[in-house]
Amino acid sequence: MTVSFVSAGPGDPELLTLKAVARLQAADVVLFDDLASGPVLGHVRQGADLVAVGKRAGRLSMKQDHICRLLVEHARSGQRVVRLKSGDSGLFGRLEEELIALRAAGIDYEIIPGVPSALAAAAVAGIPLTRRETARRVQFVTGAGLDGGLPEGLNWPALADPHAVTVLFMARRTFAGFAARLMDLGLPAETSALMAEGVGHPDQKITRDTVDGLARFLGATPPGPLPALIMYGALA
Amino acid sequence: MTVSFVSAGPGDPELLTLKAVARLQAADVVLFDDLASGPVLGHVRQGADLVAVGKRAGRLSMKQDHICRLLVEHARSGQRVVRLKSGDSGLFGRLEEELIALRAAGIDYEIIPGVPSALAAAAVAGIPLTRRETARRVQFVTGAGLDGGLPEGLNWPALADPHAVTVLFMARRTFAGFAARLMDLGLPAETSALMAEGVGHPDQKITRDTVDGLARFLGATPPGPLPALIMYGALA
Repeated sequence: MTVSFVSAGPGDPELLTLKAVARLQAADVVLFDDLASGPVLGHVRQGADLVAVGKRAGRLSMKQDHICRLLVEHARSGQRVVRLKSGDSGLFGRLEEELIALRAAGIDYEIIPGVPSALAAAAVAGIPLTRRETARRVQFVTGAGLDGGLPEGLNWPALADPHAVTVLFMARRTFAGFAARLMDLGLPAETSALMAEGVGHPDQKITRDTVDGLARFLGATPPGPLPALIMYGALA
Repeated sequence: MTVSFVSAGPGDPELLTLKAVARLQAADVVLFDDLASGPVLGHVRQGADLVAVGKRAGRLSMKQDHICRLLVEHARSGQRVVRLKSGDSGLFGRLEEELIALRAAGIDYEIIPGVPSALAAAAVAGIPLTRRETARRVQFVTGAGLDGGLPEGLNWPALADPHAVTVLFMARRTFAGFAARLMDLGLPAETSALMAEGVGHPDQKITRDTVDGLARFLGATPPGPLPALIMYGALA
């Protein structure tokens, strides 16, 4: 009785690992989020159960404790269970709640790491996230709190460092607030910024700007349908 | 004329992406580092050239400008060139120097992202790197300067934050120095720490300790042959 947490990568099925493909092909049931859906599920064998447990931000979806109960029930029924998560499951994938539920139920699990969407975004943009002399720290930060606003308890001075590269996850709606606070703390308005939308999807899009410029652009533009990552700082 | 920068992942050939395997199979020549060698190269077709350009820390190896020249020469000869890099090529992979050389020579490139060794290490340890309430910032930091000592110009207060998860790359020899400075800045000595050695290799090993305990252990233990990652902070 083992649950496989499979990292789906950014959405391009060619960016699945061989191990992820093997687990998808062997699965009896696959629990997936909206974000991980689409072509990646093409690797699942005919006849397997596909269960959407979508948790896309801002949309009504299954509660986390219900997802945990489903996971435990499927595993107990003796099925080979894959829990598919977009990007890398350990990076803003809300993995912990599900691991705790499985441990409490005495069910083994394995975690299959994957390609984080942030690294796929940098690859699409043609840049490294670190550079030997000028970008020696990269930080990945949650871009939205439980209520959808600015997260609480962030280390703002660490985020206002222009010599780091900072990647904000799910920050499209909050970025104007981030930018205002960061510039108050001394981050130069002209610091390089980049928004990556729909990375790994056929209509992926990279927008390059400054921190101030991107904040103004997002303030004046309704959010699109694709998930977005925003990065800023010592970008090449 | 295109060079493919292929991320090899942590070393387990099952953690290659489908796209990485396709590029390795199609390559006429593969330039690889020591760290990326071994089973991953099993995907290269018979008859392709394998060129070791090893840059393992502390060992005599090819100079970076020589690697850049080789890349350009092979690409100009019309060969399908893969530049294989361990982990994710954009994360402490010294990608920038090689991109600059190709741009200067007018040669196109693509970057294929991969599974970073840090995320593979967390998966092996069975933990997520972020947690919803308690670990909202993850930072990846170079663990050694050009001379092999503590890197210069680091944002030490950002690193001394016990509410972040910090991953140090290639920090086995420098960790005692990191720990002393971080504890001086207020990081509690009993902060959780974890060392992951040889992740993705058959003899991978996870050591759990505290920041102070791991620093003492490493101070008293000669370095092993496997690459090591050290993480500390708000670990599950």
